[in-house]
Order: sequence, then C-alpha cells, then structure tokens
Amino acid sequence: MKIIHYSNVEAKAFPGGHAHGAVGRVLIGQNDGAKNFCMRIFEIEPGGYTAQHAHPWEHEVFVHQGKGAFFDGNEWHTAESGTAVFIPGDTEHQIKNIGDQTMLMLCLIPSGAPEL
Amino acid sequence: MKIIHYSNVEAKAFPGGHAHGAVGRVLIGQNDGAKNFCMRIFEIEPGGYTAQHAHPWEHEVFVHQGKGAFFDGNEWHTAESGTAVFIPGDTEHQIKNIGDQTMLMLCLIPSGAPEL
Repeated sequence: MKIIHYSNVEAKAFPGGHAHGAVGRVLIGQNDGAKNFCMRIFEIEPGGYTAQHAHPWEHEVFVHQGKGAFFDGNEWHTAESGTAVFIPGDTEHQIKNIGDQTMLMLCLIPSGAPEL
Repeated sequence: MKIIHYSNVEAKAFPGGHAHGAVGRVLIGQNDGAKNFCMRIFEIEPGGYTAQHAHPWEHEVFVHQGKGAFFDGNEWHTAESGTAVFIPGDTEHQIKNIGDQTMLMLCLIPSGAPEL
C-alpha cells in the first residue's frame, strides 16, 4: 500500500505543449505497479490553463480544489470542487483556472497513455 | 463530456457486505462510455468504516475531504485531504473515518470489477 500526500510528489511541467501556470504530479502509476490506469494531479494557478488538444485516450477528472472552466470543443462549462468531468477519447479539450485560488484537479488516464 | 457534482449522483449502499455509515456513488463508469476504469466516491460518516476484505483488483484512492485510517493487512496508516492511496490487488484493506467531519474519498477501479 502506497500512501502519499500530493505535495510530497515531484511536480513536472504539464505535458502536451503549450500551457501556462500548470504543473502535474504522478500520484499512482506504472512505477507503483498500477498496471491499468494512472492517477495524476494537476495544479493550475489563477489565470493558468492547459493546451487545447485531443488524443485517443479518455480523462477521468475530479476537481479537488478551486474553480475551472472546461472546453469540450464547442463550449465552456464551469466545474468547482467536488465535480467530476469525463472527457472521452478524441475529444478536443482545454482547461482554465477561472477562480482566485490554485486549482487542483485529479486527471486519470488508462495505461499506455503517457503518464507525464 | 460529462460534468457532474458528486452530490447530484444517487448514493448507494457500500458494496462488499459489512460496513457502517458509508455510501458510494458512481461518478464515471460504463454507462458513460468509460471502458477502462471507473471513478466512484465514498462518503463515510465520523466513526464509520468499510468492511475488511480483499479482492483481485486494485484501488486508486484519493482523500478529498476529512481524515481516514487505512489498514493494509498489518497496520493502520492515516491519510488526510490531498493524500493518494494505492491498494494493490489481493491486499487486505479496511478504511475508517477517524476525523470529526464527513470523509469523502475517490476510489477508482479497473473495468471488470463491480462498480457498486
């Protein structure tokens, strides 16, 4: 059993190219023996955002802290702490922090996709 | 894209038999087209606990709110909000709320395991 607070995991640059004010951490992944899916947490500063992009794998997201806007390829939706977001594979998406505190969100991916 | 606050999802009895003061919700699962893994959230009242048990599939857990104790088959470990817990398959485990507020924890499982 692995137990670790997210703040004790090394932060890395956000994957996928263009992003601003965003870092990620792998909380549970292949190195822990997690063979089916990977848990990451992303930290987005106020005003920060991820790149708009799409890829074949899905995201299962949960907003742990703060308030974000999620683009689904057509429109933006808001999501606050306690909200789950499912982004199916091949869906254009982008995420912005639209609150005044750091946004923390879990973002899980199936194995085979790049962890970070 | 599915966006839903956990409180808007129907709560169900905790799976796995003996449990006290605990309910679960499927946030993202097969019904949403999530074919690889499933996101649930469990709500455990102060003093509540889940059954001690083991099963072949792993759990990827994240404590969203509150303070819990996690049994790994040998000893108990504490985990507060912001902590990730990886419970490999076939590991005996039990979870208790040892804080004074409702404990909320995500608990993700691979597809094939019962969602709830």
